[in-house]
Amino acid sequence: MSGTLGIAVIGTGKMGADHVRRLDRRTAGARVAAVADLDGDRVKEIAAGLDGCAAFTDPHAALAAPGVEAVLVASPGPAHEEILLAAIERGLPVLCEKPLTPEPDGALRVMEAEQRAGRRLVQVGFMRRHDAEYEQLKALLATGALGRPLFLHCRHRNASSPSFFTSDMLISDSVVHEVDAARWLLDQEVTAVTVLSPAPSGAAPEGLRDPQLVLLETSGGAIVDVEIFVNCGFGYQVVCEAVGESGSARIGDGQSVLVQSAGRWGGEIAQDYTVRFADAYDRQVRRWVDATRRGRVTGPSAWDGYAAAAVSEAGLAARRTGTRTPVVLAPRPELYA
Amino acid sequence: MSGTLGIAVIGTGKMGADHVRRLDRRTAGARVAAVADLDGDRVKEIAAGLDGCAAFTDPHAALAAPGVEAVLVASPGPAHEEILLAAIERGLPVLCEKPLTPEPDGALRVMEAEQRAGRRLVQVGFMRRHDAEYEQLKALLATGALGRPLFLHCRHRNASSPSFFTSDMLISDSVVHEVDAARWLLDQEVTAVTVLSPAPSGAAPEGLRDPQLVLLETSGGAIVDVEIFVNCGFGYQVVCEAVGESGSARIGDGQSVLVQSAGRWGGEIAQDYTVRFADAYDRQVRRWVDATRRGRVTGPSAWDGYAAAAVSEAGLAARRTGTRTPVVLAPRPELYA
Amino acid sequence: MSGTLGIAVIGTGKMGADHVRRLDRRTAGARVAAVADLDGDRVKEIAAGLDGCAAFTDPHAALAAPGVEAVLVASPGPAHEEILLAAIERGLPVLCEKPLTPEPDGALRVMEAEQRAGRRLVQVGFMRRHDAEYEQLKALLATGALGRPLFLHCRHRNASSPSFFTSDMLISDSVVHEVDAARWLLDQEVTAVTVLSPAPSGAAPEGLRDPQLVLLETSGGAIVDVEIFVNCGFGYQVVCEAVGESGSARIGDGQSVLVQSAGRWGGEIAQDYTVRFADAYDRQVRRWVDATRRGRVTGPSAWDGYAAAAVSEAGLAARRTGTRTPVVLAPRPELYA
Amino acid sequence: MSGTLGIAVIGTGKMGADHVRRLDRRTAGARVAAVADLDGDRVKEIAAGLDGCAAFTDPHAALAAPGVEAVLVASPGPAHEEILLAAIERGLPVLCEKPLTPEPDGALRVMEAEQRAGRRLVQVGFMRRHDAEYEQLKALLATGALGRPLFLHCRHRNASSPSFFTSDMLISDSVVHEVDAARWLLDQEVTAVTVLSPAPSGAAPEGLRDPQLVLLETSGGAIVDVEIFVNCGFGYQVVCEAVGESGSARIGDGQSVLVQSAGRWGGEIAQDYTVRFADAYDRQVRRWVDATRRGRVTGPSAWDGYAAAAVSEAGLAARRTGTRTPVVLAPRPELYA
Repeated sequence: MSGTLGIAVIGTGKMGADHVRRLDRRTAGARVAAVADLDGDRVKEIAAGLDGCAAFTDPHAALAAPGVEAVLVASPGPAHEEILLAAIERGLPVLCEKPLTPEPDGALRVMEAEQRAGRRLVQVGFMRRHDAEYEQLKALLATGALGRPLFLHCRHRNASSPSFFTSDMLISDSVVHEVDAARWLLDQEVTAVTVLSPAPSGAAPEGLRDPQLVLLETSGGAIVDVEIFVNCGFGYQVVCEAVGESGSARIGDGQSVLVQSAGRWGGEIAQDYTVRFADAYDRQVRRWVDATRRGRVTGPSAWDGYAAAAVSEAGLAARRTGTRTPVVLAPRPELYA
Repeated sequence: MSGTLGIAVIGTGKMGADHVRRLDRRTAGARVAAVADLDGDRVKEIAAGLDGCAAFTDPHAALAAPGVEAVLVASPGPAHEEILLAAIERGLPVLCEKPLTPEPDGALRVMEAEQRAGRRLVQVGFMRRHDAEYEQLKALLATGALGRPLFLHCRHRNASSPSFFTSDMLISDSVVHEVDAARWLLDQEVTAVTVLSPAPSGAAPEGLRDPQLVLLETSGGAIVDVEIFVNCGFGYQVVCEAVGESGSARIGDGQSVLVQSAGRWGGEIAQDYTVRFADAYDRQVRRWVDATRRGRVTGPSAWDGYAAAAVSEAGLAARRTGTRTPVVLAPRPELYA
Repeated sequence: MSGTLGIAVIGTGKMGADHVRRLDRRTAGARVAAVADLDGDRVKEIAAGLDGCAAFTDPHAALAAPGVEAVLVASPGPAHEEILLAAIERGLPVLCEKPLTPEPDGALRVMEAEQRAGRRLVQVGFMRRHDAEYEQLKALLATGALGRPLFLHCRHRNASSPSFFTSDMLISDSVVHEVDAARWLLDQEVTAVTVLSPAPSGAAPEGLRDPQLVLLETSGGAIVDVEIFVNCGFGYQVVCEAVGESGSARIGDGQSVLVQSAGRWGGEIAQDYTVRFADAYDRQVRRWVDATRRGRVTGPSAWDGYAAAAVSEAGLAARRTGTRTPVVLAPRPELYA
Repeated sequence: MSGTLGIAVIGTGKMGADHVRRLDRRTAGARVAAVADLDGDRVKEIAAGLDGCAAFTDPHAALAAPGVEAVLVASPGPAHEEILLAAIERGLPVLCEKPLTPEPDGALRVMEAEQRAGRRLVQVGFMRRHDAEYEQLKALLATGALGRPLFLHCRHRNASSPSFFTSDMLISDSVVHEVDAARWLLDQEVTAVTVLSPAPSGAAPEGLRDPQLVLLETSGGAIVDVEIFVNCGFGYQVVCEAVGESGSARIGDGQSVLVQSAGRWGGEIAQDYTVRFADAYDRQVRRWVDATRRGRVTGPSAWDGYAAAAVSEAGLAARRTGTRTPVVLAPRPELYA
């Protein structure tokens, strides 16, 4: 593992720019060799701040640029499929921000391409798998100390939602994180989804069904309930309690600095995922770079991206119909066994 | 308010005997004037330990005994209706252990009797309303500081269930506490029930659907989810998190003594409701005695007992059918407005 | 144990009036037979609210009143000795608010009177011994699970001090509670005191040395450090961490209702000892009444009152001289062995 | 800031080897250009695992090696002065593990060398200044929200001490971290030290005075109490509560994963500083590399190393004599103003 890994970053919006900084400043063994964005001025400005980094408006050109050995995709979801197929075509390892693709069909085509290529090249950016607390919870479940998992009680709260957020996005953009986390923690597939909606909060924008309660049933007989509340007002919070046959474990509402003042004890709540999951994002990219330099893929696969998209699709139907909706998955290809 | 209140205790099983001790030793202004139980030996033994207390095997005789001014009913649920009607007939105030009656119909008849009597005489033993933490939560919601309530996330766990416990009793005996607490905290009626069941815990007795997830919808558009798990193994735990439009509040998993030892921090979990709700039971009886001596009824009414029975009935149907089941209530009589 | 215990309450200021209410409303088996206070109007008003209670301005007359079987002393500390000697003379059991006497000499004379009487009649109102958390800590230390105790780290904080509070009273009125708690938890005597004072808080009244750090050494080689801070601003807080050879245990900063709102998690801090120790006061009186009706004395003795006064005296010297000051105790009479 | 910073690591024991890994794997912009250790086999083995890294047994040769632009000193304390003087002579920036020098005199000579050089080159490895919680506490104190600090209550606990640990090292090796943290948090010097020792724990090796209570007084009138207990048995724990005129803040005993099982709630305690301060070590080195590449020194200075050594020296005297011992500092050179 000598030399640094040359990476093309596709998409330099908020998330992409953040990844560029992460690769450049906080990731040993990596360098940003190319950046691509439809916004030519932005991409040039970003490239200018980096040694030996080329700027492109065409993502395919970035993939073909000299020194590019791997790709980090941070463009909008609908653009993912095309660039993923191109990267697979070139045999380039990819770290792709979630969603892999917005619809399950696109994800199936990405899997077909990988199968033609004969090997896994794609990792999906479900960064919670790299969070220290989630890892501890996963490890604890694996010991069997809590018995077989029966429930995951999840809370996913944002202080407020961006203006473009829709009622569907509470499921497809937010709960999708719990879908992947649940699949990963339990090592089970989701088999059905039910959605209950309380009267929307007065703090939510007009027309937004916020909050919602999303109920997932899994292949191993566990139940996952997710409170998704994207205008909770008080901060960003991701809590998960796993209840097993002989005990429970909870992450996400621990405490750090405890202040006592003016008649109250307590502390601050993080306002943003960049605070809560800062280390998880760093670790995700560091691990991806390390594994890629060793010629391996260790993170969530295209299958994981596909399964999340399929559950998401069923969740949207469940929300609209108000009824329990089964999740039907394609057979799992051997490459993802 | 001079002199002490003479009370007949009907039923001297575990709960009744506990109430006798409570009245005798921890309740100023009360004295046990009569006790009744089908088990003649037990009831004589209990009366022998008390000054001026008469023992009966016939509860009606106990109601008629000299010095009896009020009644505490702690006999099994199916026996409640008859003794309640008799007490109302005699104009005696009653504190009746939950359930008021096992079925909604019996509760309707109790309400009719009270209406004929022209005044409320019956208080139901939903003791959580007297728990300090529940009271603080209720008070906090009343301030409006958290905004309109959207969710109540409830956990109701017992270390293990008694041998006679059935899958229905998880709802009718256990979740009924959350039903009343939710109605009281939100000041809303329950309008529908859905029940989801994970694969039963291996720690539960053969055939018992334990745990379950019970979902209540309310007249004000809130959603209440209740994990009921009566063989959780680790202890007795009642947690409630109220999520409002602008904040959340949680009771029931605070800490008292924090121990650090052998690589771990933490503390003990109460094993029994008699520990967790010891003060609530005392306070309930003390308040009932105080109010009764002043000629008032301040606690949960027969209507509350009826509503709980109606939700319970719907919950059992929801569990069996696996579908969302509406709750239909009789019109609320003016006496309970 | 039939009939109720007739009690004379001496002193009806804030604390005494509180005890009257407690005996009347929350203590089964007790009745206030007489009250005495120099303020004749106040004492009459209080007696008027009680059935069969006589009012006196002369405490000795109250002791001699018909139906008086026991005495609760809540008058100012300097008045204690005289009334204690009178009560012992009459063979009346006494619950005496702390301090037993302000100076060790007075306490020695009380002990002499008890020895002449040939039995213990006096219990001192160190109510922390009746607090549920302190009791759990005591029980935990007794199991040996933490090994031999090495440190007690104590925090004793008041939101603000009354206008008459002096620098000496931080030790004689406040830390005296930790002195008794430490003696009781450790079952050891205090052998030396050192006091360190930071620059006084700007929030403290001019001239008051607040806060202070009081360091106690004990006969078993443990060290007790007490932060006493009577103008901490944020509330009333009594924390104690016991550190043993193999673990530690902490009481007093557990949590009850957890609120999340406006970017913060946390809860309220009690503002007053009447909240934090409400149950301890009730339990103390209830236990004293129960024991007295059985002809027993089970609480802290005159020796405990004496030892606290002796440590207090040494503490005041330590504060003034800025040096470590030994505590010298008289030999312990057999009656208090 | 182009190119990577070539670093010589002096000393490749446990701590040095750890720093080599950190620089190589987790620090963007740095590369290990040379390593030196008296143990020639070990140093060769370490160098072999790195691209373009030369191995030396003579530290001076490592400083002179091609590509060396900065030095990280992780050799034993007594060896520090010589290598620091050599690095300053060569104008090389240095990150020196604590202690800067074991005795204050050596630190004074290092400061003289920096003053001759006309600029600061040395940073001392007090890594707590880079811990996220300590940073939050420092920032909170700086806002003034808690008022002027009055106390720092510190707990510094190790599961067990290495075999070579002496009673002096509890102060010079362990409490020295609190000395620096207190100086930094308060921005004050320590003016006096008092040490109280309970009877040693039976769990401590024969002859070791463990635990101790170290009391520091500061130039601004604050008091710092430190429980140092290096054989506490239950884990590694560093707690600090700052008490100000209007509030307190505590770090170090927050919670992450909360487990409920077998009648207990709680979680694991870290067993080792490498867990508790893993991020702080990484951040310290990353910041030092970043600052050095920009030609700056931003961390704790030689003056901080000197002050810590002077307090340590007074602490050892205080422990031996059992009396309050003043700390006398040399005048602070302008370079460290």
